[in-house]
Amino acid sequence: MIFLKDNVLLERDLRLEDVKPRLLGHWGTCPGLVLIWSHLNLLIRDSSVDMLFVIGPGHGAPAALACLWLEGSLERFYPDKYPTNKEGLHNLITKFSTPRGFPSHINPETPGCIHEGGELGYALSVSFGAVMDNPDLIVTCVVGDGEAETGPTAAAWHSIKYLDPAESGAVIPILHVNGFKISERTIFGCMDNKELILLFSGYGYQVCIVEDLDLIDVELHTALFWALSEIKKIQEAARSGSPITKPRWPMIILRTPKGWTGPRTVDNEIIEGSFRAHQVPVAKANKSEEHLQILQDWLKSYEVHQLLADGKPSHDVLDILPPEEYKRLGQLKVVYDCYRGLDLPDWTPHAAEKFDQTSSMQQSGKFLDDVARKNMKAFRIFSPDELESNKLSAVLDHSGRNFQWDQYSRAQGGRVIEILSEHCCQGFLQGYTLTGRTAIFPSYESFLGIIHTMMIQYAKFSKISRKLSWRGDLSSINYIETSTWARQEHNGFSHQNPSFIGAVLNLKAETARVYLPPDANCFLSTLHHCLKSKNYVNLMIGSKQPTPVYLSTEDAMEHCKRGISIWKFASTHDGEDPDVVLVGIGVEVTFEVIKAAELLAKLVPELRVRVINVTDLLVLPHESHHPHALKPKDFEELFTLDKPVCFNYHSYATELQGLLFGRPALHRMTVEGYKEEGSTTTPFDMMLVNNVSRFHVASRALNAAALHNDAIHEKLSGLLSSINEEMTQVQEYIGEYGKDPDNIYELNITKTES
Amino acid sequence: MIFLKDNVLLERDLRLEDVKPRLLGHWGTCPGLVLIWSHLNLLIRDSSVDMLFVIGPGHGAPAALACLWLEGSLERFYPDKYPTNKEGLHNLITKFSTPRGFPSHINPETPGCIHEGGELGYALSVSFGAVMDNPDLIVTCVVGDGEAETGPTAAAWHSIKYLDPAESGAVIPILHVNGFKISERTIFGCMDNKELILLFSGYGYQVCIVEDLDLIDVELHTALFWALSEIKKIQEAARSGSPITKPRWPMIILRTPKGWTGPRTVDNEIIEGSFRAHQVPVAKANKSEEHLQILQDWLKSYEVHQLLADGKPSHDVLDILPPEEYKRLGQLKVVYDCYRGLDLPDWTPHAAEKFDQTSSMQQSGKFLDDVARKNMKAFRIFSPDELESNKLSAVLDHSGRNFQWDQYSRAQGGRVIEILSEHCCQGFLQGYTLTGRTAIFPSYESFLGIIHTMMIQYAKFSKISRKLSWRGDLSSINYIETSTWARQEHNGFSHQNPSFIGAVLNLKAETARVYLPPDANCFLSTLHHCLKSKNYVNLMIGSKQPTPVYLSTEDAMEHCKRGISIWKFASTHDGEDPDVVLVGIGVEVTFEVIKAAELLAKLVPELRVRVINVTDLLVLPHESHHPHALKPKDFEELFTLDKPVCFNYHSYATELQGLLFGRPALHRMTVEGYKEEGSTTTPFDMMLVNNVSRFHVASRALNAAALHNDAIHEKLSGLLSSINEEMTQVQEYIGEYGKDPDNIYELNITKTES
Repeated sequence: MIFLKDNVLLERDLRLEDVKPRLLGHWGTCPGLVLIWSHLNLLIRDSSVDMLFVIGPGHGAPAALACLWLEGSLERFYPDKYPTNKEGLHNLITKFSTPRGFPSHINPETPGCIHEGGELGYALSVSFGAVMDNPDLIVTCVVGDGEAETGPTAAAWHSIKYLDPAESGAVIPILHVNGFKISERTIFGCMDNKELILLFSGYGYQVCIVEDLDLIDVELHTALFWALSEIKKIQEAARSGSPITKPRWPMIILRTPKGWTGPRTVDNEIIEGSFRAHQVPVAKANKSEEHLQILQDWLKSYEVHQLLADGKPSHDVLDILPPEEYKRLGQLKVVYDCYRGLDLPDWTPHAAEKFDQTSSMQQSGKFLDDVARKNMKAFRIFSPDELESNKLSAVLDHSGRNFQWDQYSRAQGGRVIEILSEHCCQGFLQGYTLTGRTAIFPSYESFLGIIHTMMIQYAKFSKISRKLSWRGDLSSINYIETSTWARQEHNGFSHQNPSFIGAVLNLKAETARVYLPPDANCFLSTLHHCLKSKNYVNLMIGSKQPTPVYLSTEDAMEHCKRGISIWKFASTHDGEDPDVVLVGIGVEVTFEVIKAAELLAKLVPELRVRVINVTDLLVLPHESHHPHALKPKDFEELFTLDKPVCFNYHSYATELQGLLFGRPALHRMTVEGYKEEGSTTTPFDMMLVNNVSRFHVASRALNAAALHNDAIHEKLSGLLSSINEEMTQVQEYIGEYGKDPDNIYELNITKTES
Repeated sequence: MIFLKDNVLLERDLRLEDVKPRLLGHWGTCPGLVLIWSHLNLLIRDSSVDMLFVIGPGHGAPAALACLWLEGSLERFYPDKYPTNKEGLHNLITKFSTPRGFPSHINPETPGCIHEGGELGYALSVSFGAVMDNPDLIVTCVVGDGEAETGPTAAAWHSIKYLDPAESGAVIPILHVNGFKISERTIFGCMDNKELILLFSGYGYQVCIVEDLDLIDVELHTALFWALSEIKKIQEAARSGSPITKPRWPMIILRTPKGWTGPRTVDNEIIEGSFRAHQVPVAKANKSEEHLQILQDWLKSYEVHQLLADGKPSHDVLDILPPEEYKRLGQLKVVYDCYRGLDLPDWTPHAAEKFDQTSSMQQSGKFLDDVARKNMKAFRIFSPDELESNKLSAVLDHSGRNFQWDQYSRAQGGRVIEILSEHCCQGFLQGYTLTGRTAIFPSYESFLGIIHTMMIQYAKFSKISRKLSWRGDLSSINYIETSTWARQEHNGFSHQNPSFIGAVLNLKAETARVYLPPDANCFLSTLHHCLKSKNYVNLMIGSKQPTPVYLSTEDAMEHCKRGISIWKFASTHDGEDPDVVLVGIGVEVTFEVIKAAELLAKLVPELRVRVINVTDLLVLPHESHHPHALKPKDFEELFTLDKPVCFNYHSYATELQGLLFGRPALHRMTVEGYKEEGSTTTPFDMMLVNNVSRFHVASRALNAAALHNDAIHEKLSGLLSSINEEMTQVQEYIGEYGKDPDNIYELNITKTES
């Protein structure tokens, strides 16, 4: 697959022109993967388990694809292109790593795959997520010794501690030690067996080492059947009501040379068993006759003519396959047709009264408690130990935390896992979602960025999946960000970072969804919508602190449906025919916009101020850029064509500026947002130091309005100094008393409500 | 510090009004930290080592600050505010966690600190980075059992395997197990001693467990002296030329109850030894007389009147301090005055000939080899095993990889560490830089985002450091991104992700530096500049593939100094009085811009096309937003005020659009960039699918020009279909042959050069 563009069965001697012009692919990890795949076939055949194979070294795509072709799984999903015959084999080999074939890394086009072959570190946690609430599923997960160096993998070994053998399936982790990364030796390759056994015993595993190359088949066969029997023991004990305390789950360490069975040397350099086997071991096979000869000798050593006579796998090969095709590693239904929607309860019983003060998270926690109770085996929450702090702990009212190592916990059936590893949370979320269920990942806003690249890898997987007719829908992956920078006046600067929004905005428009619901009712409506939705990356951002509820249940639904509305109740002159438009996007900055309008109404009653709230960020880009984007007419109706618009935005200004590009007359718009200013201080001081306070908004509005209005221009400096004076008073109060003035959070809008 | 705003020495009974209006701070981790700090004092006093204390649980700021006040380190750096007397104590306590005092987490304002108290997971790798090439330094690093769950920490335990005891100092890691995170139990708290000893022995440590609360002082004292003596043994063996193979470095596990010595119960709920001790254990001390009484009893239990009579620490306390003040944990010079600039060699010997094809990385590798040779103890490269793949391996010509566990490597003195953990690389980079040295972190572009939030935490640390007169300058932290998406046609979609640029752009303008040098000479000039610079986050993005060299040594220097230039040689009509401006930012997309100009010259010779290259991204924002930003006059001279401008940008379009906000007449500008399209394909196909190919640029230019020029408007459809036809031919060629047409990379500009 790496080399040939013709003569794939070696029916004649190889010629230079049989070799591809560009040699793309990775050989080193493949022999080990094929070895494991073959043995898994035997295991499935003889024990009839439901099994998936998650491959950490995703650059070993040739191994996976070859096995999938042999077992007929490629034919199943690509009957025209890759049948299990000579033509299919020709296509598989010649098109690999070309613009019209499979790419060089495992991706969703690979049947049976639930893990993008790219960024390393996540195979293990994804595997554990997949088996949760899937009691009959076993995922064999191979982790390369390169991947094993990553932090996310190092943490994920602990995942067994969150796995209830009564309700969930199991993972057989195989650490594949072949000694080399791209060019450096690996840590695990330089650890001796004593060190490895100690390490993994410490993690809580029973370790079996497979390393005798002469007896490798016997050893690996025995190891896999042993692992399965150990799993069965643990599961049966738990399922019969006598769970084993701290069960020692099995894991396997497989030591084989990198690029095993490949050429020993090329150009006098060692290949097999060295880092040089990583990619293309015979680099000049399309240019040098000498290299071509090495290639031919190597390929012939596999006796292709016997194994694949006329392109048909021999009986020896086919015999080890599970007889039921749907049991083969590429065809388990849980990968391609698994979507289970949630039985979603009504959110409105948890709606708050208009103009009450309440925490979006507290109300959402109650709703999530309902969701969990109605979907006991199809819904989970993964969180880095922030559920309580994020005020979502109502989900624990009828459920526990599924932490098996803690014998004092209500672990059984618990819908919540709280591990202080965002990487594990994200991996579990992915595995759980990719096998048809629905989950939520609530987090402090500042720390969700830790899994930014994982989320992007997932979105890439999702994008390609959507193009494949044979892959079904999946639930969206759902993030709740709270404890936002605006209320991290407590923990201070290091806890202020809204950058995850930007990461979601970079995704394809068909996937990216970003919501900043302004109050509890809007948050509930949004949450309900997201849990229903499919195939998106949903980011919901809200406050855990009590904040005003502006909209009734019905108004909230309507506002969320539109994604943006004029808020008459907060505007002056009913928001009609405005001189200036103030826009709040995000909880606290919207409150400041409302207060700015109030301040302006007091100072300059004749100024016509329209207040807008955006709850769905993606209404703002140019209509060609997102399905939610406002049509030009609607944009004009809301923002006018020429009046000044002051955005008060939750995240970085540049982000929103980029989104607005393409909208009319950008020079009339100003954007302020979080600008990396803050410390342990008071909540209102956070608004002040980031220039998003009511005083800043009002000043911006006046400056802008003055350009178009001579009357305002005339009294501008007076107005500004009056605003500054008030601001200075507040600053002094904060400095003196170490808290905000009480009246700063009073909402005076009820009276203006129609 | 969490509670009192007055009466800090408890000279009279507490009153409600003595208690702060907002109770901010974290108690649970503090007793353990104070315990360790005290014992470290003894250790330093008696053994006279140079020691730093890196505190993972950064929310334990009160513990650190209290100890720093006692030892006089606060007085040293804040003589007016925090002297070691009654007034200083009053200030310390009453101002903590208020707008005018220390924030609630450890930050650079804390003397002796080299680690932001925020996102968890990095204390250990930062500690190892700090001791590298600092043979006399010992860093004691406490890792909380919450932090221990993070992946980055789990990987960082392996750091001993990269520590050469001959050339570097040592770390004493202390895993502080107190059993609870914010509200859930911890993994490590639920592991028994057998599991812990196995795990850390597997990592390669000797483990000492300190847990007998009755004998805690004896046990901890003994453990620390044991650790130091084990370190000395290992170091002496290595330094006398008989290094121990795989030396077993010491580590300590300290088990104490969370919130030890705090209130046992409040409102009938257990506090000491439970998660409720995490933050404020007596939450209503400012409202309830009952809580106030609990607080008073608790605080009095420490016998403050004896220990701090009249605000002076007693002799018992002072006696354990190291007598030399500069040895105290808050005053080691390596933290506040440590900058060692590099002895920087000239880069020009590695300059490439104009119009040659060469790899920016290959040339840079040679330069870095020179840098390493001239700065053997002050320069390092940390990379996730990509040095060879990134074609920077010339640095290995005179140096090795410093991997101690690999007995076959040229580890001694090696300037390179290649561990497949971006988190470790970043942690090492931070620790190394924060103690005065200089390092580079080269990475595949797509995977640098893994440490996006770590980089932000570092930048936050750096921002506050700069405001402190007593903290000196530091080298910048330097990233090289290569193997960019544009040349990840090999590994495919999962390896395409330029989002790290956006993360750097979100930083404060005084810190953020982003360079996209268009050729090898510009890259060398940029690299030289970055290695010289101080206090920035430098991101350099280039190609590892051979690409044309456009500028001579002098021109490259001049171009890099300006950050942006008109490229006459690539423009038509000498780039003067343009009808349309084409802008390339990034290597491959700039090449396409040049080819687009060529195409336009052929098709529409009368069209005046100006070609601009931007090498310093931050010349583009509005001048108020970045010190490098072009003045309006200069912007106008380059881009005109009204002519169409077509940007071909390396990263996401929205990013650049956001930067341009505030520049004149944005409606005339179009931006294309990477838009999450790609697979394993050919390099030119990557340009095509992301709409940044020469054909796309030329079409955009023509469409834009046609709006202002009737002659072009008339023949527009003919021109566009001619472009389309050529594009289709190329697409078909790629589809058929699986490679790009050879002539697609020909540069035809030498002849037009003056």
